[in-house]
Amino acid sequence: MSAPPPYDAQQLRHLAGEIITHVRELAAAGWTPATSSNFSRRLDAHHVAITVSGRDKGRLTEDDIMVVDLDGQAVGSDHRPSAETLLHAQLYRRFPEVGCVLHTHSRVQTVASRLYAGAGRVRLEGYELLKAFAGNTTHETALDLPVLPNSQDMPTLAAQVDALLDQHRLWGYLIDGHGLYAWGRDMAQARRHLEAFEFLLGCELDLRNLGCTR
Amino acid sequence: MSAPPPYDAQQLRHLAGEIITHVRELAAAGWTPATSSNFSRRLDAHHVAITVSGRDKGRLTEDDIMVVDLDGQAVGSDHRPSAETLLHAQLYRRFPEVGCVLHTHSRVQTVASRLYAGAGRVRLEGYELLKAFAGNTTHETALDLPVLPNSQDMPTLAAQVDALLDQHRLWGYLIDGHGLYAWGRDMAQARRHLEAFEFLLGCELDLRNLGCTR
Amino acid sequence: MSAPPPYDAQQLRHLAGEIITHVRELAAAGWTPATSSNFSRRLDAHHVAITVSGRDKGRLTEDDIMVVDLDGQAVGSDHRPSAETLLHAQLYRRFPEVGCVLHTHSRVQTVASRLYAGAGRVRLEGYELLKAFAGNTTHETALDLPVLPNSQDMPTLAAQVDALLDQHRLWGYLIDGHGLYAWGRDMAQARRHLEAFEFLLGCELDLRNLGCTR
Amino acid sequence: MSAPPPYDAQQLRHLAGEIITHVRELAAAGWTPATSSNFSRRLDAHHVAITVSGRDKGRLTEDDIMVVDLDGQAVGSDHRPSAETLLHAQLYRRFPEVGCVLHTHSRVQTVASRLYAGAGRVRLEGYELLKAFAGNTTHETALDLPVLPNSQDMPTLAAQVDALLDQHRLWGYLIDGHGLYAWGRDMAQARRHLEAFEFLLGCELDLRNLGCTR
Repeated sequence: MSAPPPYDAQQLRHLAGEIITHVRELAAAGWTPATSSNFSRRLDAHHVAITVSGRDKGRLTEDDIMVVDLDGQAVGSDHRPSAETLLHAQLYRRFPEVGCVLHTHSRVQTVASRLYAGAGRVRLEGYELLKAFAGNTTHETALDLPVLPNSQDMPTLAAQVDALLDQHRLWGYLIDGHGLYAWGRDMAQARRHLEAFEFLLGCELDLRNLGCTR
Repeated sequence: MSAPPPYDAQQLRHLAGEIITHVRELAAAGWTPATSSNFSRRLDAHHVAITVSGRDKGRLTEDDIMVVDLDGQAVGSDHRPSAETLLHAQLYRRFPEVGCVLHTHSRVQTVASRLYAGAGRVRLEGYELLKAFAGNTTHETALDLPVLPNSQDMPTLAAQVDALLDQHRLWGYLIDGHGLYAWGRDMAQARRHLEAFEFLLGCELDLRNLGCTR
Repeated sequence: MSAPPPYDAQQLRHLAGEIITHVRELAAAGWTPATSSNFSRRLDAHHVAITVSGRDKGRLTEDDIMVVDLDGQAVGSDHRPSAETLLHAQLYRRFPEVGCVLHTHSRVQTVASRLYAGAGRVRLEGYELLKAFAGNTTHETALDLPVLPNSQDMPTLAAQVDALLDQHRLWGYLIDGHGLYAWGRDMAQARRHLEAFEFLLGCELDLRNLGCTR
Repeated sequence: MSAPPPYDAQQLRHLAGEIITHVRELAAAGWTPATSSNFSRRLDAHHVAITVSGRDKGRLTEDDIMVVDLDGQAVGSDHRPSAETLLHAQLYRRFPEVGCVLHTHSRVQTVASRLYAGAGRVRLEGYELLKAFAGNTTHETALDLPVLPNSQDMPTLAAQVDALLDQHRLWGYLIDGHGLYAWGRDMAQARRHLEAFEFLLGCELDLRNLGCTR
């Protein structure tokens, strides 16, 4: 007889269902091409539910969700967590109030990451949708979305993220040639932040295409 | 025993169903990113059904629809109406024949609003689809879609809209960095106007991208 | 007791079902904005089934299909046929082998029509998909898609179309600021022609955007 | 009484189901316009299941799948295999480990094929999604996607492909004005390669549009 898991299995099931519903929608929108992207929800103070590496996000089932601890190590599972699990765990460790991390690879996100990699940030300014970010109450503000250099070395990436988080409150960052991380209190807020970044990056690319530099 | 509501509850239910059907379609098209946008239908001479602020428009249910009076105050509900409710109420107050107001945030609308904010209007000319606007019977016409500066102060915005409505018959306006308001006699006509504006703004952006300034 | 209709009611039902299925797909793709566009199928040597003017193409039902004769006059119906019915009837009258006419308003079609109105045609050349047009067996060919000036006077438009048809075999034409007409032996072939035009026009716009003029 | 087929009919049924599911998704994404594109799965050492030429890919059923041998000849069927069947058979003959070949015609693929036909290749470099190709473990790499001249003569095209395969390991190639071939061990891997090519070509076109040449 195996020991019970060190987390609430009922709650895992609930969060897995939520992840599956939302990730299938993001996959249908084309934001998770070629099995890329990963998604997580905080289970409790010590555990996180996260998608298993390399699964087709448009066909996600409960078998594609695993549990890791806040160091990103698998708990009660033989599945290999994605290398990027470390970047999820980092946010849960640092911010007890963070309950959801979404990492996607839309074409807009990837193109913007390359275009603004040199500048190291995308300035988002004067949009009503800036109010979608928790804590913002007006469009008369500016938000800098950082763009980090890509690396296959996760501790290096994590250290760069930590340095950014020491400076500002953030709801997301881009990695060059790669994609976007966005997070929030729960799935609804993280998804709202993700959609707002995608939308605003898309507007910035369109305006640049149209020769509108402001 | 609570008093009956001061409106026809059966009719509210009917209109809520109609709003839900149409808003889910608009959400699926990506016109309501990050819980933005709001939608309303006239219930009677004194009441309007309108979406509650901040709800996910792709998951709208009857609980996400509330009733306000023509001053934009909640009726029989503890929900907070969106600040923008005032812009809906303004149209219902001014035009007894208006039965539906749709406010969306598509990428095309937001990009066009920024691009044409300086000019204060988008001139739409020579398109067959101009016939989609009530009262137009030919493509040999021009329609100016106004672009207002954005403001978090709704009475200021409403005063600017009133000044425009004093000058011309309008079926919609843009707010800079924000989105589009469109309206009509009923849902079908308001939606037709909304789709026509979205389509024509998209054509204008494409033609400008292609270096076609006419 | 009313007289039986002068056409096969069973066949009308069958064709209406086919039209509804295909038009809903075209509407979902965004090719019929703001209740625009119309669609028809030959019923017999003297009758055509065609969509009623002004109906929402994403919600089409049997009630939105009417019968007209080859002069475009309503048969057994009080519905008003669209003014553009004349352009459908013209093709059925001229070509006994034509069984289906599809008229859509996609953004690509409208933008291309404006961009190439001056030239009076879009030259499509070197694409494998040219083989989608009946009678073509190689990509080593060129096809000119005519662009006609728009007019609210249908007999004028029809005369211009007739002059074109006197010169070349055609499977479609654009009207400036308006949209595309495409046709074929049956729904499958007309839809194939429609999709091929849409695809090739989209490629031409993209290549022009990318500065590739060839 | 007819002889049993020289392949496992049960396995054919299974693979046909898989093809139908995936091809309908690709059709819904618009990658198979105007009945174009074809798709195959290895059945055994001598047989391949492949889509019948000219069928509507959004409505695929079991009747639209036929069996060919590794020379591309129909087995137990009167259906005509597509001329391009030869390009599928070539890959199965040459690589015993290849189990799936997908050929699509998205707008991005066709536009990229024309834009890069002169260079003969598209260089894909610095993208995280390069890791989607079997054998790649880092974004710090470059992959050249070849672009072949189009030809209606399949042996000519096949000889050009063979020459490329003699030089490099490949997971796909473009044909000018035509589309993309991508392949892999099984459907999941071939689809992952296909989606990665589509995504990366889309990014390249967007970056070029934005004046980012690197």
